[in-house]
Amino acid sequence: MTNLTLALDVMGGDHGPHVTVPAALQALTIQPNLNIILVGDKTKIEPLLQLADTGQISRIEIVHTTEMVQMNDRPIHALRRYKQSSMRLAIEAVRDGKADACVSAGNTGALMALAKVLLKTLPGVDRPALVSSLPTSKGNPAYLLDLGANVTCDAEALFQFAVMGSVLFETVEKRERPRVALLNVGNEEIKGNDNVQQAAQYLQDTPQLNYVGYIEGDEIYTGNVDVIVCDGFVGNITLKTSEGIARLLVHQLKKGLTEGFLVRFLARLIAPRIQKVLSQMNPDQYNGASLIGLRGIVVKSHGNADQEAYLQAICLAVTEAQRRLPEMIKDRLESILLDINS
Amino acid sequence: MTNLTLALDVMGGDHGPHVTVPAALQALTIQPNLNIILVGDKTKIEPLLQLADTGQISRIEIVHTTEMVQMNDRPIHALRRYKQSSMRLAIEAVRDGKADACVSAGNTGALMALAKVLLKTLPGVDRPALVSSLPTSKGNPAYLLDLGANVTCDAEALFQFAVMGSVLFETVEKRERPRVALLNVGNEEIKGNDNVQQAAQYLQDTPQLNYVGYIEGDEIYTGNVDVIVCDGFVGNITLKTSEGIARLLVHQLKKGLTEGFLVRFLARLIAPRIQKVLSQMNPDQYNGASLIGLRGIVVKSHGNADQEAYLQAICLAVTEAQRRLPEMIKDRLESILLDINS
Repeated sequence: MTNLTLALDVMGGDHGPHVTVPAALQALTIQPNLNIILVGDKTKIEPLLQLADTGQISRIEIVHTTEMVQMNDRPIHALRRYKQSSMRLAIEAVRDGKADACVSAGNTGALMALAKVLLKTLPGVDRPALVSSLPTSKGNPAYLLDLGANVTCDAEALFQFAVMGSVLFETVEKRERPRVALLNVGNEEIKGNDNVQQAAQYLQDTPQLNYVGYIEGDEIYTGNVDVIVCDGFVGNITLKTSEGIARLLVHQLKKGLTEGFLVRFLARLIAPRIQKVLSQMNPDQYNGASLIGLRGIVVKSHGNADQEAYLQAICLAVTEAQRRLPEMIKDRLESILLDINS
Repeated sequence: MTNLTLALDVMGGDHGPHVTVPAALQALTIQPNLNIILVGDKTKIEPLLQLADTGQISRIEIVHTTEMVQMNDRPIHALRRYKQSSMRLAIEAVRDGKADACVSAGNTGALMALAKVLLKTLPGVDRPALVSSLPTSKGNPAYLLDLGANVTCDAEALFQFAVMGSVLFETVEKRERPRVALLNVGNEEIKGNDNVQQAAQYLQDTPQLNYVGYIEGDEIYTGNVDVIVCDGFVGNITLKTSEGIARLLVHQLKKGLTEGFLVRFLARLIAPRIQKVLSQMNPDQYNGASLIGLRGIVVKSHGNADQEAYLQAICLAVTEAQRRLPEMIKDRLESILLDINS
């Protein structure tokens, strides 16, 4: 593996440096060829580096700034008011070639706006998309996009998401011709709104993609498709709803298993096993959403990610950088668009 | 309780008369003032009535027809081709005053189209909505609408859904001023698309409703709001996604608890408890969606409902008929619209 450098927005997220810095040190241990730029308040970062060894320290650079984007800042404010925010400087490091990718657990809207303005979209891509990997009952992951970068999408945008999602899946999961589906309210051709139906038409006419048709919400988690495309409004609500129902089930299960002495006693004995299953399903564990379609790699971590979850987001950024994701998407998109236009 | 009559589309659903007829007999036992019209093929119905006692038989009428709407029929076909389908005749019984409500487990799109054409919408309602009750971690139900009757909705439609959902909740749950929320991609005022933002404006200007703002997908199941409003595309996918993730969790849990002898043994001892929790969460148990905004009561059962689940749908129809739901919605809607226009 060639040397890689990541820029981390150390200040972003609910826990800030207390999670991001230890996760960065862990990443340096796992990935011997990795360098990390920690972007944030050095008075908060430096005390957390006391446990680092000299090998780690030599691969860390601190870019000091005290400015940061708040969770409730509007994207336009993040863009105009803060010229030195930790989020902005991390993205600029990618733009200026100082880093191969960046990671932030900060305000999603601000991250998208900054990334789009600073990095620009790839040729042929009108709008970047936010995509994440979900667990399925067969064990293989399913990629869902867009998760909220684009609240409204036309058919063209949905089509581009399908291409980008497909390339991302191939690149990260190393599996060719992933099965691409459109999320809809029914499997029949007549179902859905105009945008979805038009996108289906585009996808049917694109043999370079392995388009398999519509799926409904309950098929997301079966593992029968690999890439699931929808607009950002639907995607965001789908993802959040999944988190909500998972929490509800966990809550009910805990309640059900603490009523009555014998049940409580037996449940405690198998608690680690139940815990393991639930943590696999915990959305905070399944961490790291990629903002794709840009001329650079940006990974969004859950705001409330713990150290382990944030480390996952870092590892995802490393994988995407190693495999040169933006170039892959660009090449693939160009070849498909060329085929279509020829 | 005054006498009530329900018309059942006996043929609809995955299991047809084998589920619907025994559920009808059970309903007659539970509800002494209930009469039931069984609409369907009498050669299939009559053998299933052999176990009924004379008291039950005297409260049953069979309307014989061999025509039925298939699950994959387009709504327009259901409307034009089948003039004698069991679904159509059940709705016509409501229209003609022979029944106080009808229940069908058949094709949802066909049911909505037939109900709208045959029963007509209430004054002030442009489009009926499909609404269902969901479990929450606090134990109180949450009502979600629209679940797919309207794939695209403008702000006006979302507003009407909020009014109708609110009245439905008050009527069925017997609780005043239910908390009404709009489903969105964030809690902040600036979030969402134009329709949702405009609907929020309408709702803020309507003191007759207890509008509490936007909620995200993960807040549906917390029990902090009572009525959740979204368009039918989002609602359908939200509901189906919830079913999907619930099934995934159950699958993972079963897998996790059958690996290793001791775990398997202990798990078996508390299996009934786990089973109980899971069945509470089973979407098939939480059965019966109401098609509201019409001049008559139509309840949609899950297509794959078993006898117990179908009975729940029947009981929901009885409750709505007893409380004269359409009149309640009509009165409430009129008073709100009058206030707004005055």
